[in-house]
Amino acid sequence: MGPLRRSSTCAVCPVSVAIMTRPPVPRDRDDDHTHEMAHVRREFVREQTGASLDAVGHYSVDPASLPGNIENFTGVAQVPLGVAGPLLIDGESANGEFYIPLATTEGTLVASYNRGMRLLGRTGGVKTTIVDHAMQRAPVFLFDDARRARDFSGWLDANFVAVKQAAEATTSVGRLIGIQQFPAGPNLYTRFNFTTGDAAGQNMTGKATFAACEWIVSHYPGARYILSGSMDTDKKHSHVNQLLTRGRRVVAEATLDAAVLREVVGVDPATMFKARQVQALGGYLAGSAYLGAHAANALAALFIATGQDVANVAESHTGFVYSQLLDNGDYYWSVTLPALIVGTYGGGTGLATQRECLEMLDCYGTGGADRFAEICAAVVLAGDVSLAGAVLAGDWVSSHDRLGRNRP
Amino acid sequence: MGPLRRSSTCAVCPVSVAIMTRPPVPRDRDDDHTHEMAHVRREFVREQTGASLDAVGHYSVDPASLPGNIENFTGVAQVPLGVAGPLLIDGESANGEFYIPLATTEGTLVASYNRGMRLLGRTGGVKTTIVDHAMQRAPVFLFDDARRARDFSGWLDANFVAVKQAAEATTSVGRLIGIQQFPAGPNLYTRFNFTTGDAAGQNMTGKATFAACEWIVSHYPGARYILSGSMDTDKKHSHVNQLLTRGRRVVAEATLDAAVLREVVGVDPATMFKARQVQALGGYLAGSAYLGAHAANALAALFIATGQDVANVAESHTGFVYSQLLDNGDYYWSVTLPALIVGTYGGGTGLATQRECLEMLDCYGTGGADRFAEICAAVVLAGDVSLAGAVLAGDWVSSHDRLGRNRP
Amino acid sequence: MGPLRRSSTCAVCPVSVAIMTRPPVPRDRDDDHTHEMAHVRREFVREQTGASLDAVGHYSVDPASLPGNIENFTGVAQVPLGVAGPLLIDGESANGEFYIPLATTEGTLVASYNRGMRLLGRTGGVKTTIVDHAMQRAPVFLFDDARRARDFSGWLDANFVAVKQAAEATTSVGRLIGIQQFPAGPNLYTRFNFTTGDAAGQNMTGKATFAACEWIVSHYPGARYILSGSMDTDKKHSHVNQLLTRGRRVVAEATLDAAVLREVVGVDPATMFKARQVQALGGYLAGSAYLGAHAANALAALFIATGQDVANVAESHTGFVYSQLLDNGDYYWSVTLPALIVGTYGGGTGLATQRECLEMLDCYGTGGADRFAEICAAVVLAGDVSLAGAVLAGDWVSSHDRLGRNRP
Amino acid sequence: MGPLRRSSTCAVCPVSVAIMTRPPVPRDRDDDHTHEMAHVRREFVREQTGASLDAVGHYSVDPASLPGNIENFTGVAQVPLGVAGPLLIDGESANGEFYIPLATTEGTLVASYNRGMRLLGRTGGVKTTIVDHAMQRAPVFLFDDARRARDFSGWLDANFVAVKQAAEATTSVGRLIGIQQFPAGPNLYTRFNFTTGDAAGQNMTGKATFAACEWIVSHYPGARYILSGSMDTDKKHSHVNQLLTRGRRVVAEATLDAAVLREVVGVDPATMFKARQVQALGGYLAGSAYLGAHAANALAALFIATGQDVANVAESHTGFVYSQLLDNGDYYWSVTLPALIVGTYGGGTGLATQRECLEMLDCYGTGGADRFAEICAAVVLAGDVSLAGAVLAGDWVSSHDRLGRNRP
Repeated sequence: MGPLRRSSTCAVCPVSVAIMTRPPVPRDRDDDHTHEMAHVRREFVREQTGASLDAVGHYSVDPASLPGNIENFTGVAQVPLGVAGPLLIDGESANGEFYIPLATTEGTLVASYNRGMRLLGRTGGVKTTIVDHAMQRAPVFLFDDARRARDFSGWLDANFVAVKQAAEATTSVGRLIGIQQFPAGPNLYTRFNFTTGDAAGQNMTGKATFAACEWIVSHYPGARYILSGSMDTDKKHSHVNQLLTRGRRVVAEATLDAAVLREVVGVDPATMFKARQVQALGGYLAGSAYLGAHAANALAALFIATGQDVANVAESHTGFVYSQLLDNGDYYWSVTLPALIVGTYGGGTGLATQRECLEMLDCYGTGGADRFAEICAAVVLAGDVSLAGAVLAGDWVSSHDRLGRNRP
Repeated sequence: MGPLRRSSTCAVCPVSVAIMTRPPVPRDRDDDHTHEMAHVRREFVREQTGASLDAVGHYSVDPASLPGNIENFTGVAQVPLGVAGPLLIDGESANGEFYIPLATTEGTLVASYNRGMRLLGRTGGVKTTIVDHAMQRAPVFLFDDARRARDFSGWLDANFVAVKQAAEATTSVGRLIGIQQFPAGPNLYTRFNFTTGDAAGQNMTGKATFAACEWIVSHYPGARYILSGSMDTDKKHSHVNQLLTRGRRVVAEATLDAAVLREVVGVDPATMFKARQVQALGGYLAGSAYLGAHAANALAALFIATGQDVANVAESHTGFVYSQLLDNGDYYWSVTLPALIVGTYGGGTGLATQRECLEMLDCYGTGGADRFAEICAAVVLAGDVSLAGAVLAGDWVSSHDRLGRNRP
Repeated sequence: MGPLRRSSTCAVCPVSVAIMTRPPVPRDRDDDHTHEMAHVRREFVREQTGASLDAVGHYSVDPASLPGNIENFTGVAQVPLGVAGPLLIDGESANGEFYIPLATTEGTLVASYNRGMRLLGRTGGVKTTIVDHAMQRAPVFLFDDARRARDFSGWLDANFVAVKQAAEATTSVGRLIGIQQFPAGPNLYTRFNFTTGDAAGQNMTGKATFAACEWIVSHYPGARYILSGSMDTDKKHSHVNQLLTRGRRVVAEATLDAAVLREVVGVDPATMFKARQVQALGGYLAGSAYLGAHAANALAALFIATGQDVANVAESHTGFVYSQLLDNGDYYWSVTLPALIVGTYGGGTGLATQRECLEMLDCYGTGGADRFAEICAAVVLAGDVSLAGAVLAGDWVSSHDRLGRNRP
Repeated sequence: MGPLRRSSTCAVCPVSVAIMTRPPVPRDRDDDHTHEMAHVRREFVREQTGASLDAVGHYSVDPASLPGNIENFTGVAQVPLGVAGPLLIDGESANGEFYIPLATTEGTLVASYNRGMRLLGRTGGVKTTIVDHAMQRAPVFLFDDARRARDFSGWLDANFVAVKQAAEATTSVGRLIGIQQFPAGPNLYTRFNFTTGDAAGQNMTGKATFAACEWIVSHYPGARYILSGSMDTDKKHSHVNQLLTRGRRVVAEATLDAAVLREVVGVDPATMFKARQVQALGGYLAGSAYLGAHAANALAALFIATGQDVANVAESHTGFVYSQLLDNGDYYWSVTLPALIVGTYGGGTGLATQRECLEMLDCYGTGGADRFAEICAAVVLAGDVSLAGAVLAGDWVSSHDRLGRNRP
């Protein structure tokens, strides 16, 4: 790489500024998505850095299928893929036993999820329910003072039908289902909420909201806006998403039979429930985005396998656990994912390996997104059950001096 | 997949319970990481689901290299990889011009980051600094009342050297640099903070903390613990990580020349700075984990390419922007990533395509983690500069009625 | 006080339990709000604790006026009251120059607010706007699974008119303006939002929501509820209140003339704006409920003086600052209080000193609550301007090496 | 009050600006804390607003005792005071049965706390423990880039002893016990943590930190600072306070005998514990600063009665509940207040009624602050137990269809 080169940009000033000396990555402006250009770039990298990209150059995906997915295509990252299951899901869209593709490089991940699925399969499976759906773009409208912002707020409510029409003119799928308003200072922050069918829908939503905003400013003198006032919150975890949903809000529930839990995981429900009190407080104290064990592991592995936008793990991994120890000794456990962003159409879902993984879940294309969302939530629950058990079986108590007997 | 099968498990109760009928995924207990077993599983999936995994079966990675990375290996997900750059970095470990491998299926991502790098390259590059390093496991110690927890807290402080010795006996690399304590009720929540060299270090940290805890409970009568009290917060964004670091805390800074900003992005610094006020408030209101544009995009693409644990996007994407409009009209912009979790040793870093990508960054192996962390932060800044410009150039003002002239 | 007495409650168990030996506070069940009973209790305290309550016994409030305000009336706390002002307010309900009663024991508080008012009076006053109004009770509805909760959610939407009717039958003032829903696990958390006229409205809202819930469970088989699912969030700061309003959401705005700011506070707007960037990040990092200086000081002093529920400082003190340095060098500054809970009717507002203080603001009784809310926000802004100036004038830079000259 | 007067300040601009026309509040620069000046100001208010302040003028506090507590002294707010108790406390500093002075205008508050105390007195009392103590001022140090900030960070650690000496030279009581560092961008945010004896200590801490900062900038070339970088977080709730303590961190614990709970509150522990799961999730979802019922009610009433800085209710009301249903059916319940700010020396504690109230708690002056902090926490717990019971007894289930029988 060599040390930075610097140049003194100014005759009088002694400060030198680092300067760029290396060439840009080669592109073919006419037809850049070819085996040949991928090869040219791998050679370019070798010349510039000394590193070979031979393995990266081993791929079967057709470069011609990649415009819309990548620029400066150079090859692929091969991410190992394992299969877990079957996972028994009693959902509304996902109903049956599923084998789950997980792409990861983290050892034990597939095995641990597999154990969770085995446990859940022996205790009635996972019930999944989609309880909300809203993808958003969040323009902020700027005024000279709060009074004007408030007046606009009323106008926006009164003109929802026309705004909706302007937004929906840009899409055959997206539907503007509501606009939430958050006044602050002279600004009106909003969230334009859409349903987006089987697409994750960020682009659809952005385009429709832009059209809506343009309609608004052409009808409301003095309105100015930024297309995102940061309340979307695209590619970021946020508390507003926990409250008001981003993508799909999905609940996965299971009732763990006490005997099965003891046999498979080696922990009894009462111990698990006591530990939940401890960990819920820890999660609150930490200001944690997820109150369970590790939703992000399931989601990252599923998202890579199925061509989701992996950056959405940031938003999607947030969630809450709600559990109760039942009077009969069984353990009711639910996970709610309030910001699960998935699609089974568009994005990376049509690429060869990704499409195959969606197809093995019967989720590719139309009607797949609800099903896939339910599967995601069920997998998350499987992983949490398994890990929670592992932590407690191994470490909860280091001696035989077990919890209980009137101890908090 | 077929509908769920249910069985009535009880003679008197009318409720039927869903039951599992399908076979587990085939494994070879003696030698499961082979081409043959991968093939067996692909065929198994085809039989069970009707979906072929032909593309998944196209890979060059050696299955024998995969124990420790995946179970039930079946093939790979091919994630398209593009190269952007050069990115001019004036760091302490990363110093020079870098070409950046980005694995993604999101169109325009590589192009947009590339534009940001071009802009930064013309205005002195990105200065990067690692300001903290701490990977943790967070055991909670449980007592019968708060007084006993507090007494233990003092003992733990007093015995830090011995605890450190017990922890470090398990690792040649990890160093226990401190234990933070958070008393709550009768529990003492802690964070055991380690430096972990060039490994991301979660496993190393977990093992060392377990050894430390076992030493503790064998020397402090009455102490019980759970190895994680949820304050780590492994695979979750959290506020405690923003405050107290997880992995590396890295700052990327640039001073954007006003003329260059106008030319490349089409926005002047004063407009950008006004918009920052709007978006910072939006981010605060939303309770957003990241106050800039889209760190998660950079990190997900880099993490997939280089064999990082992609689930750590959950933690790593959090960050803050601090910027000032300078008196000469230039724009100072910094991004701080307080929980950037990366490694250049262990995990998925040694797999073929992943290793190649680390090598093109001169980051593979010993000494690479600091360099790679600095590169990650610089890439994040490049993407934020580019996207912020795009949002403002296109949408900030919809007419010619520009911001300014005494408007808030 | 003497040491705790303990008794062994069990023949076999060696643990003794602390026991209560002292008499309850004397009450007269027939007529407890009398000078005589107040005297009896003061004597009782003297006997039990040795402390005289002579000063507490010095009061002019009529005990007979106190049922509904206090039990076991024993006397009063005398809180010193100072007057600041005039404060120039350009509000919709508060319009004119106001003298402000502040009850506090914190030296410099009145003087500092007074200085802020003087500054604001010389630069056009404070513009105040109420942008939202919603007081809530937040029942949670409990179901056996998420699907049932979701089905109920739709039913609740569809039956809003009837629910509203049931709620409003209990009050001549309160109006149910909407029900927000937050599904999580098998539960449906809600916020029942009301306008409550000139009363703070917590009791009115509680009673109306209870009636609504009783109507609901009598019409929706299987619905169970808790009247508060903790999302109100009564007597607590919360993020949901920042987003969705509790009480009144009020904005106070001012444009600070650069010359006046320099003269009165000794700081120029550019320095103040640079410091704002620093402090906004500090506030975000801290997870602070208020991004300005010290709203709680204004509100506590106003609330004590005017008979508000002082515990509501917990909710009311939250807020955001939004500011911009204008092109002409002036400083636009706004404060938004999203959860300002005030009333000018009921509660402690009718007590003698409290009523006088409301009357000096022309806020007592009907129509007063909006006016008082605007005044509160204006006072908050006055105090923040004053303190921000003080911090910077004294401490911003310790030498003559001032900020600026291309420093971030 | 009359409408605002406006003046056009500019010959060409049509915008008029509101102007101040009323006189300032009269002061006597030589001796302002007199009955006479209080009278003059009451008359002034009457002239300017038409409102009499007769009741405000009824007070026994000696104006000459008020410099340092109030400016523009005009009279007092009379806040009704009731006594509850006895409250049985098994603390380290507070040990015995206490009668509790509560100043409030909210009906039922005293009665409800009284009921909670009665319940707790019958079930062993409240165990209280102070687990941490740290009052802070939070300067931020500003540098030109992150690297310089980090270098300073190391220097600050290395020079702690000298910094401590500089700080402590300003106070006979305060002790600098540590400096926490939070690097972000080119800034180093800090918290200077002190113990402050029996004073709340904000002023002491501010003065000592100022001296420390001045020493620092005179020894570290290039260091600039703002005395508060907003991470203190003075008069604001914050998450950092929950984690790292502000004032005293106090735990109050009780074990509620199942039979007593049923008899006094009418709820059994199992129901209460089920409800706790529901409300803990609601509190998390809401982003609530307090996970129990209503700490702010206890604290506001205690703070007014005893001369605390009532604005500190903002910080002090935050807290967590940790509870477990014990194997014998009893209910362990703890409240942790991590940011309880109290003093028994200085501030308003020496005023006549306030001092009497501290004396009835045996808390006035030296050694009182720990005792008073423990009492505050115990009162909070009493109120929460009482209210939680009331909510459940009345509303938990609206019909006879009780919770339980395998319901989550």
